[in-house]
Amino acid sequence: MLEMRPTRSTGSAKRGYLIPIGGAEEKETNPVILQHFVDLCGGAEANIVVFPTASRLEDTGARYVDIFKRLGAGKVDFIDLNTRADCENLDNLKRLDEATGIFITGGNQLRLSTIIGGTPLGDQIRYLNAHEVHVAGTSAGAAILPEHMIAGGQSGPTPRQAAVTLSPGLALTNRLVIDQHFRERDRLGRLLAALAYNPYFIGLGVDEDTAGFISPEGVLEVAGSGGITIVDPSDLEYSSIAEARRDDVVTMTNVRIHILAAGDRFDLTSRRPLVQAQLEAEENA
Amino acid sequence: MLEMRPTRSTGSAKRGYLIPIGGAEEKETNPVILQHFVDLCGGAEANIVVFPTASRLEDTGARYVDIFKRLGAGKVDFIDLNTRADCENLDNLKRLDEATGIFITGGNQLRLSTIIGGTPLGDQIRYLNAHEVHVAGTSAGAAILPEHMIAGGQSGPTPRQAAVTLSPGLALTNRLVIDQHFRERDRLGRLLAALAYNPYFIGLGVDEDTAGFISPEGVLEVAGSGGITIVDPSDLEYSSIAEARRDDVVTMTNVRIHILAAGDRFDLTSRRPLVQAQLEAEENA
Repeated sequence: MLEMRPTRSTGSAKRGYLIPIGGAEEKETNPVILQHFVDLCGGAEANIVVFPTASRLEDTGARYVDIFKRLGAGKVDFIDLNTRADCENLDNLKRLDEATGIFITGGNQLRLSTIIGGTPLGDQIRYLNAHEVHVAGTSAGAAILPEHMIAGGQSGPTPRQAAVTLSPGLALTNRLVIDQHFRERDRLGRLLAALAYNPYFIGLGVDEDTAGFISPEGVLEVAGSGGITIVDPSDLEYSSIAEARRDDVVTMTNVRIHILAAGDRFDLTSRRPLVQAQLEAEENA
Repeated sequence: MLEMRPTRSTGSAKRGYLIPIGGAEEKETNPVILQHFVDLCGGAEANIVVFPTASRLEDTGARYVDIFKRLGAGKVDFIDLNTRADCENLDNLKRLDEATGIFITGGNQLRLSTIIGGTPLGDQIRYLNAHEVHVAGTSAGAAILPEHMIAGGQSGPTPRQAAVTLSPGLALTNRLVIDQHFRERDRLGRLLAALAYNPYFIGLGVDEDTAGFISPEGVLEVAGSGGITIVDPSDLEYSSIAEARRDDVVTMTNVRIHILAAGDRFDLTSRRPLVQAQLEAEENA
């Protein structure tokens, strides 16, 4: 388990889903996101491992175990990762090897990156996600999923050079930068600033109680009560980020955005929305 | 003065500038926006009328008179408009007829629309702006400038059907919808929702201490310490606003945004940014 492992699928193995959740997902009355995750992982056959590492609350792991069992998951455990040594512990790595789904809770994403980053367990999560294991993360757990993680920043819709701090994440995708609590904490500016640094990425701004279920084929589908703001800087004509001082507004021209609600889909490869009503309208046109 | 007047420039008369300000513009140390307004209105030859109608504070009018005089304006008065009768008062209309510039303060934009809307004084402001008189408004005074005014709404970057309430404004332009305190009060969602109703408009999200100086030729130039977010829905492919329930997220695909900082310009007719560094780069390409 400690050997180097490829992070790309090889042979017939399919990737698992990648599921960023914007935080504060509904857990009791109508937990559509968590239910969909359990079903995707196999329902009664699901074997889910929860990492409550980001959280400082004692009961976060146990709480998610209860929720996932209530939603029909066959087997659920949480693993406390409090030190980097915990991420080399063979029992932990063995337990993880049985998983059909991995769930990373919210809290402080820097706890996740400093404890898991560069450890055998971090490598194993990448390997498993490349081999059919679904990985969901909520709030800080969503931020950590891509190669480049938003570690912190300022709120507000206008990007400023100092509005965002990036650091390495779990690298389950290198196409996305993810921000969470998007509507609730007013984070368009910091997401735009992150994209200004390198317009290669697609930005996902995920509202609370909202998730993007990203299929092995790279199609994202929105679930939950909020929206996902897709920020596509691929036609960006000009950005002043290289010249801007820390608190300057960053000029950015020609950024494309899409606001997607539950059921809407987006193809991350073609960078095109696949909105059901829009597709039907085009069909009938 | 009470006869019907055309609101379009006729013959050789040029339009005046239209100047939405995002609120909280710097008044003491480095009042670049207010200074530029005074200079535009003629400096020592300037004749400025201030309408503190939106404000509930007793001293708002007198305060702006002091500021504009300190910044070199030749003649400045404020006119209290507290009733619709005040907007038919001949002395008020006569005083306004001498103005080279009109300044509308912040406060509650519904006070402005309910007191000035549909009165001879409202008509006169439109006539004067069509005939070389510059009109600036800050905060509520900026919101009231276009034909369709954002009367209220919810904060957050994700548009919802109920996120915005529109009502008629002063109609100095029918091309724009203006939102103010943009960065500070997180208003992208309500601006997007306003545009979803009718993607004909260009949305301006104006940060505090930031202004758009819109020339008679329809070119906006940014001044001040913040940014202006231009939201251009002209390539909008799909919006769900017609079907959305009040609190649903509104799906909107393919919205173009530009973030502009001081000195950046935007041509409202061609809908193209005219960013100095970008133009120079294209020149040298």
